[in-house]
Amino acid sequence: MRKTGHEAERGIELEFLGCPEAQDGCAERLEAVYEGLISGREGFTGWAALPERADGPSVARVLEAAARIRSQSEALVVIGIGGSYLGARAALELLGRRGRGPELLFAGQNISGTYHADLLDAVSGKELSVCVVSKSGTTTEPSIAFAVFRDLLHERYGREGAAGRIYAITDPSSGTLRAEADAEGYTSFEIPPDIGGRYSVLTPVGLLPMAVAGIDIAEALAGARLAASPALRSLAGRMAGVRKALMDSGKSVEVFEQYEPSMFFFTEWMKQLFGESEGKEGKGLFPAGLSFSTDLHSMGQFLQEGSQIFFETLLDVKRPPRDLAVPAGAGPLLAGKSMNEVNRAALEGVVAAHRAAGVPIIRVGVPDVSPHSFGQMVFFFQLVCAFTGRLMGVDPFNQPGVERYKSEMKRLLGAAASG
Amino acid sequence: MRKTGHEAERGIELEFLGCPEAQDGCAERLEAVYEGLISGREGFTGWAALPERADGPSVARVLEAAARIRSQSEALVVIGIGGSYLGARAALELLGRRGRGPELLFAGQNISGTYHADLLDAVSGKELSVCVVSKSGTTTEPSIAFAVFRDLLHERYGREGAAGRIYAITDPSSGTLRAEADAEGYTSFEIPPDIGGRYSVLTPVGLLPMAVAGIDIAEALAGARLAASPALRSLAGRMAGVRKALMDSGKSVEVFEQYEPSMFFFTEWMKQLFGESEGKEGKGLFPAGLSFSTDLHSMGQFLQEGSQIFFETLLDVKRPPRDLAVPAGAGPLLAGKSMNEVNRAALEGVVAAHRAAGVPIIRVGVPDVSPHSFGQMVFFFQLVCAFTGRLMGVDPFNQPGVERYKSEMKRLLGAAASG
Repeated sequence: MRKTGHEAERGIELEFLGCPEAQDGCAERLEAVYEGLISGREGFTGWAALPERADGPSVARVLEAAARIRSQSEALVVIGIGGSYLGARAALELLGRRGRGPELLFAGQNISGTYHADLLDAVSGKELSVCVVSKSGTTTEPSIAFAVFRDLLHERYGREGAAGRIYAITDPSSGTLRAEADAEGYTSFEIPPDIGGRYSVLTPVGLLPMAVAGIDIAEALAGARLAASPALRSLAGRMAGVRKALMDSGKSVEVFEQYEPSMFFFTEWMKQLFGESEGKEGKGLFPAGLSFSTDLHSMGQFLQEGSQIFFETLLDVKRPPRDLAVPAGAGPLLAGKSMNEVNRAALEGVVAAHRAAGVPIIRVGVPDVSPHSFGQMVFFFQLVCAFTGRLMGVDPFNQPGVERYKSEMKRLLGAAASG
Repeated sequence: MRKTGHEAERGIELEFLGCPEAQDGCAERLEAVYEGLISGREGFTGWAALPERADGPSVARVLEAAARIRSQSEALVVIGIGGSYLGARAALELLGRRGRGPELLFAGQNISGTYHADLLDAVSGKELSVCVVSKSGTTTEPSIAFAVFRDLLHERYGREGAAGRIYAITDPSSGTLRAEADAEGYTSFEIPPDIGGRYSVLTPVGLLPMAVAGIDIAEALAGARLAASPALRSLAGRMAGVRKALMDSGKSVEVFEQYEPSMFFFTEWMKQLFGESEGKEGKGLFPAGLSFSTDLHSMGQFLQEGSQIFFETLLDVKRPPRDLAVPAGAGPLLAGKSMNEVNRAALEGVVAAHRAAGVPIIRVGVPDVSPHSFGQMVFFFQLVCAFTGRLMGVDPFNQPGVERYKSEMKRLLGAAASG
């Protein structure tokens, strides 16, 4: 499906519709920020060097493990939450195809007894492997799910057999999961200590599940390299400058929107990336995700005529992977067109209608639905996010607020245990 | 699963945490609004009388059609968008169980060629029926999908065979779908002309797909009747008054949140209900939906420390349907508890942490996950929404802004056709 040569190198394009200008000197300032990121002078910026750093041997190990999982499993349960979940899920929903390789299921991204009881029913009788993703090994949600599925594997395959079906992605040297993986002999991969969860898709955290689903991970990394090129870096800087100007103009919500339902989890990933990086010290845009045209029939009224507190960031995929002809029975205006042509008319109609209502729109042209475009988008938006954080004066790589509910929860669990 | 007798009659409970008080006289004013709604003096308020109006004979016809669909189909494709989609989807995700009756699939809720080509693959070789839901029959998305699936049924079963497998839910007398249903002899149901899409879940629009999935629709209607009782009406009025006071205090985003992943589409339904009813004349709360604890690991940082433009409406299900024991391997703090106990500790931990951060929270206690609670929630939130619209001075039953993009789209399609 993906075009080769010149076409494959086509990069993301941007169009700013009704947006304020970025501040003067913004581009130069951000090029200096990039130099700081790539030099590793600051903490948690290892992701910036990933397109270069992800070398042949580490990709080869991922592919080897993926081949083993595919040969030994009818289902792979991927256990993780937040940055250890959303990137892989986004890639699989966008690029995975049913019927190729084992079924990929997710666990430990919530604590619902109902969800996990249903999941146990769903894997009943299927040859099973488990991929557990956790930097520390102590996050509550994946700890519980891993305990459940490890017990199931032990029961089915014995302790040694289970060890051959558990794949751990964790810190290279510290934490309980690292210790267990080394002691039990699980196949394990490293989350580099200088890469935070929401910047980790292009490490084994995202790459192993993608490879199991038959997604070309070398192409994803090639896309990321293109996004790291000077031309696209400069584009990311422009988008960061405009987002900052939109905040300064009083906008408080950013709507990430797309016209391909398979991109739903990609905008979920974007919500984490931007919300967790920018939402601190009383600042930040509230990130929302919408799937069009579906949500035009629910949120369209608000966007057109409601309180104008938002702007839109539109992911516009130029060449969707599949299409259908609209049958004659759909009426004279539609017949003879393809569904994607009508979908494009909807997109252009919405842009015109929302522009007329005064909504600022950042239009992001995405070449196609391919591993290359996926890797490109991931790295591009990571750059936009890091750049905007620096312009806002917040640290885009920490998340101090996430710990609050965890400590409250542990206090409550401890009280219940001793009560 | 559902308790009988006294337990089944337990209603929704509300708790207002850190919320401003409703204006004086609000309750009396809203009781007068309710009288106006129920009397049918105003347009599009037929939903208010539904719990009483939905009588035995109409439910019996729905059940009869559902039984036929179940006996003749391995898959039912439900075609609709917006209010002709979200309510049924919400009910099925919450209450449907895999493996009972035909697979239920959705079409025409978007215009993606990729989505619909994948869907055709998914129904390949399966005995098929189609339920098409459209008031006018001319909405673009369902028109295209219905043309595709009607052609497929004609091809497989012939024109007459197809007519026995098409179920139309549409206006009682006007529109292209009504005319076609009558001419071809489809089984058809009526969408009452005085009920708008987002208030139509408890008509055949929602009830037929629910019945096909084996969901007890009489119980759902019983839940709605409880929500229409004076005590719960008064509670809905209090919630409306507090929401209005929160708007007046400067809040611009309402976060609908839950801890059961099966409720995701219920909050999508709520987003349409509130966003489309209130988002007009430059007013309204921007509605967002979050699934916890999943989204605490993406949006949690923003909620805890980001720009405080929002409040939270928490759907707190008291008795989830299934549970699992947490195995010993999950560590001393967690072992010996059930997953739902840990999930509840997460919920209470988040309430405490967000309250400490100054976030106002409306806590909605939902008795359980049952058809009764579903019907109760649907009618309760419809009342809250209608009441709030009246307090805000907007018409909660129209959606003038939704037409804009449709006319822009049709203009573009027309230009392309003649170009």
